[in-house]
Amino acid sequence: MGFSPIARVSPETAAPLPSAQNLTALRTLTEFVKADLAAVNAVLLQEMQSEIDLIPRLARHLIASGGKRVRPLLTLVAAKLCGYQGMQHVDLAACVEFIHTATLLHDDVVDESNMRRGQASANALWGNQASVLVGDFLFSRAFQLMVRVGNLETLGVLAKASATIAEGEVMQLMDNNNLEIVEQRYFDIVRAKTAALFEAACLVGGMISKPEPSVSQALGAYGSAFGTCFQIIDDVLDYAADEQELGKSVGDDFRDGKVTLPVIYAYHKGTADEKQFWERAFTQETLGKNDLVQAQAYLFKHKALEYARHKAAFFGKQAKEALDVFDESDLKAALLSLVDFCLGRRY
Amino acid sequence: MGFSPIARVSPETAAPLPSAQNLTALRTLTEFVKADLAAVNAVLLQEMQSEIDLIPRLARHLIASGGKRVRPLLTLVAAKLCGYQGMQHVDLAACVEFIHTATLLHDDVVDESNMRRGQASANALWGNQASVLVGDFLFSRAFQLMVRVGNLETLGVLAKASATIAEGEVMQLMDNNNLEIVEQRYFDIVRAKTAALFEAACLVGGMISKPEPSVSQALGAYGSAFGTCFQIIDDVLDYAADEQELGKSVGDDFRDGKVTLPVIYAYHKGTADEKQFWERAFTQETLGKNDLVQAQAYLFKHKALEYARHKAAFFGKQAKEALDVFDESDLKAALLSLVDFCLGRRY
Repeated sequence: MGFSPIARVSPETAAPLPSAQNLTALRTLTEFVKADLAAVNAVLLQEMQSEIDLIPRLARHLIASGGKRVRPLLTLVAAKLCGYQGMQHVDLAACVEFIHTATLLHDDVVDESNMRRGQASANALWGNQASVLVGDFLFSRAFQLMVRVGNLETLGVLAKASATIAEGEVMQLMDNNNLEIVEQRYFDIVRAKTAALFEAACLVGGMISKPEPSVSQALGAYGSAFGTCFQIIDDVLDYAADEQELGKSVGDDFRDGKVTLPVIYAYHKGTADEKQFWERAFTQETLGKNDLVQAQAYLFKHKALEYARHKAAFFGKQAKEALDVFDESDLKAALLSLVDFCLGRRY
Repeated sequence: MGFSPIARVSPETAAPLPSAQNLTALRTLTEFVKADLAAVNAVLLQEMQSEIDLIPRLARHLIASGGKRVRPLLTLVAAKLCGYQGMQHVDLAACVEFIHTATLLHDDVVDESNMRRGQASANALWGNQASVLVGDFLFSRAFQLMVRVGNLETLGVLAKASATIAEGEVMQLMDNNNLEIVEQRYFDIVRAKTAALFEAACLVGGMISKPEPSVSQALGAYGSAFGTCFQIIDDVLDYAADEQELGKSVGDDFRDGKVTLPVIYAYHKGTADEKQFWERAFTQETLGKNDLVQAQAYLFKHKALEYARHKAAFFGKQAKEALDVFDESDLKAALLSLVDFCLGRRY
């Protein structure tokens, strides 16, 4: 653990190196809404409280361990982009993060993961049962917070996104170990399980300013395309990243039988022997210790990670274009750079 | 399986036999809102739909298998009692049932149950992962439905109840196998994990008629006390019922290490030897096949099930008294009889 086996078979994963500009994009964007983001953190800490000790303890483990807070950041920035002046965006951003946290807790139960954000996952520490229940609690708290905001339209968007996420996760579960799925199905899953919440995060941030339909549409389109880009890179990093930087185990998707874009591509390009390897790897109970290295070698041979990054760049471009309706501004520029950060990110 | 071992050691469980009146109380109440209940079922079937096959298939398994529909019934009856004329109560009743179904799905994962409502549980058929995710889906659908109703006050009540249920389940999980818990703690758990949703079911049914505060308070008090009564009887039946009538395995709580009211009572009344038995039974990994029979014998010796039924009757009385604010009517009479049905129920 802690090293990236792919580094031994391929220099591909070292490129594209994030430029200095990319690396600071997240930080720049964060600077624009620094006070708001601090307020979001305060709401998260406040609203995860419960007389039942274990709940804040388990929630804090996940929420305080950080993560990139990309989704609530998008809500705050979308609000700012629409010139919003009130405080509802802070609660809504916290709702988005709670929904995300709840799905992470349930995902880890589903995947039986042992690592999350660079530390032991909640289910590994407190058991699956506690993770299911605390996920339910945070999910409920998110809706309580939305009631406090008192805006039915944003409530509808976030409730729908939550249902869509669950649908996406079920789709993924049903297609586990199925190497015959085609790219279209992969993108359907990504749109539901990941892009839907990014889209909703942007939408609700804008919605509270009652913007023109074209502005709402642009924000939703940015969120959806950016979320898709984000997930593809996640799937690339699962085969390519340095574990310590990534904060979770490399090869998780491979072990969990998740058939992601790089695998779909390499499998379809593969020789009969290679196909046999993938089929064996995705059907047998336990993997040999060289199987991941072998998988990475085949991905390298077919430039499958490069292909996936190329697709991610396509969605990144879509995301940028969606922002055309907005006038030029430093904030918009930072939002555009965020796409480059995502494409270049290594964690 | 399929026989009730307690019948061999005790005639206690045969009494109190439900009177003919009690047996029909649920049916009578159902008659009052028959068309509404049919409408609720239609909404449930409609709203559990998804393009992802597995979701309606799994949801239908649980929802179509029936259950008593007590919670949505309470919402409908509360609405009728307040003279409500619109159609919002139907959607709200469906929300209540969806929340209940979602918690059942997650409970079965937490408890690793194999039987529910007389058939194999969803997690036994489709795995824990699908149960977690479909639970999340139904939960999200409930909130989408609430948005359709468009009443923020009822949304707040149901979101709060959902959070409280999760807290109750976590409390219960933390106290698993802990024989030292006292009655007060048991009632805290019951109030949160069960009574909160009964209370909310009654409250939201009334709320849409904007009743006097005293009426709202009465409905909430009825729901809460009735829910507590309902759960105590559930806990009694787990040691006393006929499995085929009950529709789930007898002794589940015992095997799951849930320390319920009858056990708390018998343990505290028990001799040193008996205490040792309970401690062994609640700490060892697997139970011997005679352990349940032994447990039932000790419960019989101390009249622990009788004691628990007595407590249930106390809450039943509270529930009835809460209805004092309403004028006499056939509907109110049916609601009073429902308490007797609950106390006498064998499933």
